[in-house]
Amino acid sequence: MAARRNTGSVTLKDIAQATGFSANTVSRALADKPDISEETKKVIREKASEMGYIANALASFLRSGVSRNIAIIVGDISNPHFSVMVKEMQTLLQRKGYNSIIFNTDEKAAMERQAITTSLSQNVDGIILCPAPGGEENIRFLQMHDKPFVMIGRHFSGQDASYVVCDDVNGGYAATRYLLERGHRNILFLNGPGGISSSAERLKGYRKALEEAGIEWRSELVHTVPLTSGKGTEKMREIFTARKDYTAVLVFSDILAWQAVCILEELGRQVPQQCSVVGFDNIKYPYPMHLTSVSSSKTTMAKKSVDILLKKLEGRKGAQEECVVLTTEVVEGGTVEGIQAKD
Amino acid sequence: MAARRNTGSVTLKDIAQATGFSANTVSRALADKPDISEETKKVIREKASEMGYIANALASFLRSGVSRNIAIIVGDISNPHFSVMVKEMQTLLQRKGYNSIIFNTDEKAAMERQAITTSLSQNVDGIILCPAPGGEENIRFLQMHDKPFVMIGRHFSGQDASYVVCDDVNGGYAATRYLLERGHRNILFLNGPGGISSSAERLKGYRKALEEAGIEWRSELVHTVPLTSGKGTEKMREIFTARKDYTAVLVFSDILAWQAVCILEELGRQVPQQCSVVGFDNIKYPYPMHLTSVSSSKTTMAKKSVDILLKKLEGRKGAQEECVVLTTEVVEGGTVEGIQAKD
Repeated sequence: MAARRNTGSVTLKDIAQATGFSANTVSRALADKPDISEETKKVIREKASEMGYIANALASFLRSGVSRNIAIIVGDISNPHFSVMVKEMQTLLQRKGYNSIIFNTDEKAAMERQAITTSLSQNVDGIILCPAPGGEENIRFLQMHDKPFVMIGRHFSGQDASYVVCDDVNGGYAATRYLLERGHRNILFLNGPGGISSSAERLKGYRKALEEAGIEWRSELVHTVPLTSGKGTEKMREIFTARKDYTAVLVFSDILAWQAVCILEELGRQVPQQCSVVGFDNIKYPYPMHLTSVSSSKTTMAKKSVDILLKKLEGRKGAQEECVVLTTEVVEGGTVEGIQAKD
Repeated sequence: MAARRNTGSVTLKDIAQATGFSANTVSRALADKPDISEETKKVIREKASEMGYIANALASFLRSGVSRNIAIIVGDISNPHFSVMVKEMQTLLQRKGYNSIIFNTDEKAAMERQAITTSLSQNVDGIILCPAPGGEENIRFLQMHDKPFVMIGRHFSGQDASYVVCDDVNGGYAATRYLLERGHRNILFLNGPGGISSSAERLKGYRKALEEAGIEWRSELVHTVPLTSGKGTEKMREIFTARKDYTAVLVFSDILAWQAVCILEELGRQVPQQCSVVGFDNIKYPYPMHLTSVSSSKTTMAKKSVDILLKKLEGRKGAQEECVVLTTEVVEGGTVEGIQAKD
């Protein structure tokens, strides 16, 4: 068994002794000051690394007021739609020397408030968040505290705040048109909850496509489904059991759409032969879901949001807020089949 | 457009003025000191919350030496095997008042070292990590710095350190036996990389099951496959194209097993009719993979690791290190079919 070496922390003085330089020179070398030669810096850095020296971020924060921590606040880190984006953001931030502190809100505004409060108390430099349903007040709270932040995936109208979203009106519109073009007339829409822009905008797109096709809008074909695990499945099972007057289902997320396929098949309706299904998010990683789905570019969304936040942190604080809307399109995945129009 | 209110930070003095109490009373009330009445605390807390007061964690750290931050270091946050565990750990830690700082290592020891160094410089209270291949030296580095930590999923032999793993020897054994009992004799094993206990132990189990069945061990049927995205797929495609002298494939993770199923079918071999596939991890959330797989209890692993770390943080520092080994079993998922033994 390897003996545990309790050597404690290596100090600047230890490195000074080991290298023969003064503690002041060591300190200035590790802080990359211009008055120390590159050669000296190299010797000191290598010895410091070899000795296991850890610069203290706290001392650095007290000196600079910069913590180099960014909070990333999302609804469900175990949903690949989020985890792929979080991984991408985390990698990009790490490359710029920032750590990511991740929070789950479970899509609840109260948990989001707690995550924001904790982030502020931890002196994070900035925040990237996908707002929880009904979290508008939380965004105002953030603005009140003047902390740089960027919203992803969702936004609130009438707020002067940066966000990166996908074109959800077009997403809902394109998916509905895709089904209409294949003969579907009765399209069940299992939408996300109220209080988030993506739900409202996708519904707008859905209605627009129906209207253009001269099909009357039937409110009983639109339902909201909870986003967090378990509850969405229950609600969908209820709906699928209660009504069968549709030939296609448009579902708010791929995770829910996948569950919808499973429930429909359990209830004896083969997908796509007896019912077509279209999801949102186009999840391809970690494993392809083989769903026809509305694509939103997760990596672009992650990249853009990090870019905007870093710009804010780099001192262009007074700069205009940026709003980015990414394009959406339907990607075929095998869960839609055309039907003969019956009306 | 809502006007942004730049009110700056709310101070104890502001709360004192608003409530009529002294700044000292406000400070003691918010610190939950026993000499302040519950009624006064309630009034002060409510006003503080209403005014958007944020306690400064830095001041608290300087006072107590406790940051209430925990680092969670894993190979790939976008793999559900990890993201489900991270979410669980994050939730459990949050309930105890700890934040989670998440790091991705991309399964590289050098990135793991960087994550550890950053965690230490950020004064995290403790670390939960799934060691990267070849990261043994990093564990010694952590021990040298005397930072409480727990390993999950993998461990290194001969180190006096806490870990929570699943019984990987039995996992490899049970999966191989499961296939042998269904008539398979030539079982390809696509194992994880060297330098992690799970690969070594699953191989041990695989060999044990073959030996018990009196089947000669053929090293050409065992290959290692990179764990991170893309590279594993390439390697598997090569192997599946090069050789076909097996009727079943045992794969190191469900993510890789799912990709294996896709590649086999692309190459014209139906699963399970023409080739059986067994994975590891038994991923059921966010969506079931419908793979026959060796189950490891992700939530138990997350819970146990948090429990052990919290015990360490709660001052039982000198306590014995804890090693937990969770049971494993094969869960049926439809990717295995029995065959007539041909030899």
